[in-house]
Amino acid sequence: MSEAFDAVDVISAKRDRRELSDDEIRWVLDAYTRGAVAEEQMSALAMAVLLNGMTRREIATWTAAMIASGERMDFSGLSRPTADKHSTGGVGDKITLPLAPLVAVFDVAVPQLSGRGLGHTGGTLDKLESIPGWQASLDNDALMRQLEDVGAVVCAAGSGLAPADKKLYALRDVTGTVESIPLIASSIMSKKIAEGTGALVLDVKVGSGAFMKTPEDATELARTMVDLGTDAGVRTVALITDMSTPLGLTAGNALEVRESVEVLAGGGPEDVVELTVRLAEEMLAAAGRGGQDVRAALTDGRAMDVWRRMVAAQGGDPDAELPTARHTEEVLAPADGVVTGLDAYAVGVAAWRLGAGRARKEDPVQAAAGVELHVRPGATVRAGERVMTLHTDTPERFERAKAALADALAVGPEGSRPAAGSVVIDRIA
Amino acid sequence: MSEAFDAVDVISAKRDRRELSDDEIRWVLDAYTRGAVAEEQMSALAMAVLLNGMTRREIATWTAAMIASGERMDFSGLSRPTADKHSTGGVGDKITLPLAPLVAVFDVAVPQLSGRGLGHTGGTLDKLESIPGWQASLDNDALMRQLEDVGAVVCAAGSGLAPADKKLYALRDVTGTVESIPLIASSIMSKKIAEGTGALVLDVKVGSGAFMKTPEDATELARTMVDLGTDAGVRTVALITDMSTPLGLTAGNALEVRESVEVLAGGGPEDVVELTVRLAEEMLAAAGRGGQDVRAALTDGRAMDVWRRMVAAQGGDPDAELPTARHTEEVLAPADGVVTGLDAYAVGVAAWRLGAGRARKEDPVQAAAGVELHVRPGATVRAGERVMTLHTDTPERFERAKAALADALAVGPEGSRPAAGSVVIDRIA
Repeated sequence: MSEAFDAVDVISAKRDRRELSDDEIRWVLDAYTRGAVAEEQMSALAMAVLLNGMTRREIATWTAAMIASGERMDFSGLSRPTADKHSTGGVGDKITLPLAPLVAVFDVAVPQLSGRGLGHTGGTLDKLESIPGWQASLDNDALMRQLEDVGAVVCAAGSGLAPADKKLYALRDVTGTVESIPLIASSIMSKKIAEGTGALVLDVKVGSGAFMKTPEDATELARTMVDLGTDAGVRTVALITDMSTPLGLTAGNALEVRESVEVLAGGGPEDVVELTVRLAEEMLAAAGRGGQDVRAALTDGRAMDVWRRMVAAQGGDPDAELPTARHTEEVLAPADGVVTGLDAYAVGVAAWRLGAGRARKEDPVQAAAGVELHVRPGATVRAGERVMTLHTDTPERFERAKAALADALAVGPEGSRPAAGSVVIDRIA
Repeated sequence: MSEAFDAVDVISAKRDRRELSDDEIRWVLDAYTRGAVAEEQMSALAMAVLLNGMTRREIATWTAAMIASGERMDFSGLSRPTADKHSTGGVGDKITLPLAPLVAVFDVAVPQLSGRGLGHTGGTLDKLESIPGWQASLDNDALMRQLEDVGAVVCAAGSGLAPADKKLYALRDVTGTVESIPLIASSIMSKKIAEGTGALVLDVKVGSGAFMKTPEDATELARTMVDLGTDAGVRTVALITDMSTPLGLTAGNALEVRESVEVLAGGGPEDVVELTVRLAEEMLAAAGRGGQDVRAALTDGRAMDVWRRMVAAQGGDPDAELPTARHTEEVLAPADGVVTGLDAYAVGVAAWRLGAGRARKEDPVQAAAGVELHVRPGATVRAGERVMTLHTDTPERFERAKAALADALAVGPEGSRPAAGSVVIDRIA
């Protein structure tokens, strides 16, 4: 078959900082999806995009071409508006678990198509799979029915959405081309736009435990994604949120489910509650149902009711005991003083090494493994006091987990107590 | 097998402008050669190298690693010193044909391991293969014997030299990563150093018909290659030479052999003679045999004698008729005036389209096809006068060849005659 363009010409254009035409972008992604552009050609193009960037128009066309590579979902038949949330990933980020039922309380449907974790940040599906019986896979009919009946679904994203992105993401993962804001933004937004949500709130994390290490990068990513969503007719808002410290007091699958249930019961760590409520408010506002007392639905049991129905609808037993690890070990404070820092990345790596995450996508995860924190920045500690508990079924992993945590906890003198700040740093709309 | 490094880490380092260590470079090229680093990973690395560059140390290590991927030849058993020449490729560049026998006249052995042409510049082996009976392939014993007996060999480079380069070059060709000075320099020099020559003269072309379009790029490439050769113990010199106009009056395989024989008979176009003599002087000086009257060996028949023995030693008949094309067509001057320019790239593309070159490496070439020039810049022409003759066995190719030549010839008023300059622009040692 004769091709409309030549792959080397398209790669060379981006290499030489020429802007790609809409036709070139559509052709290269279509040809890549059907195998007419080879993996080694796309990886060279991805590196050129990473180093030379793309314009707003190029990113929009790139995203549209990835959407066009697959099917689109349609929630317009539902009796309620839809709102979705996407987090760029962080340590202890269990927010989807209390958030989806909380938003559903206010008659907004939440279709949360999620993925599994890779590396030091956990995956939402891995967390929910620690609930006995719970199933991540739903067909489209079951998804629609649950959205109508329960109002909230967290399930595995089907492979029919943006297959070009799926292929490209696997390639970027092995070729050092993940860290490109245009490619990250188009990857996330192609799936979210194809999913067909009416409103979308993005939680863009910044800090050591996040993909974006600086506020500038996080803001650029948020701006790029908000523009893409808005241009595609999705009401899109982004919050920039802190990921220098883990969210809440747990990192690990069952540990995070337990903490989420505490939040749904009206308790839980204040940072998790704050972010859950703030994201729920944004989702409701974007879906046209703003101005409600969201926090009340956590304390009066309404969000917990939806959670229980949501878990049960996918085969899970909301009353079942969550798995606990066969082995635990404590980490002690090195000195007297005030906790001035608790590094999110180190905690994430430790949880990962304990078995909570996977190094390759085919690896299993341990449901009960992870890190439990007993202090947060601002706490006063005494030397030798327990500051973390490590959980695993495979105790030979403790050493490497503790090595990751060697410098995780910073203890300073009295008077160096950090100011308590909001987890939400900025809002981009 | 456990690997010493991770490919993504090495790619990311170059992507982020970190200098690669010697161990990282050695590992990545070795792992690529044995297939542990995938094509898509190497193409991403090649694009990062192209866009972010390499230091002198990185290039030297990269080149040494490519040499280490294969065998090395050794000419130290010969009774004479060796000198080799490499051209970066140009239109009408038949210099190797008169040069190799000319240098051999002065008791310096010339092992000229060559390639075939791809694209608009012809290959030396393709040219010689237009001589009836001539064979490009020689085994190592025959090569050594011919070097000792005749003093000059032009033959196909064996596949054992720098196999990493061979694999990488094929990848770069399809991924838009050819145009990198560090990668071009290391590709050329890995083969020349592995070949084991004692002295090397580089002919770095600059101008429309060359790979390097600007004097700055040509100088940088020449400097990089001279440094690589010198650091590896090869006495290396580079000439920067003009390729805005074709060399001599012919572009095409048998046409160029005929012109080369004219030079060996003491005639031929002055630019071809000048460059042949200048390169021979440089090769002899680098081999420790400088200060000889080189031009005399062209006029007194000594170089022709070596040529005849060199051709015959590889099965060729130096007295055989060279093939002529079944069809010719003339190109006429568009106006009265002075030829102010004759574009090398356009002539190269025309010769290629007439059948002298190949689009893919498995394509055959036509021995007799090509472009014959009847004028050079500085000539006075009259409208309608014959300025070129096109040769091909497949006359349907004339149209596309003429299209390539549409703007090749620039004719200006009397008084715009360009100054006659030397073909040699600069010397880098």
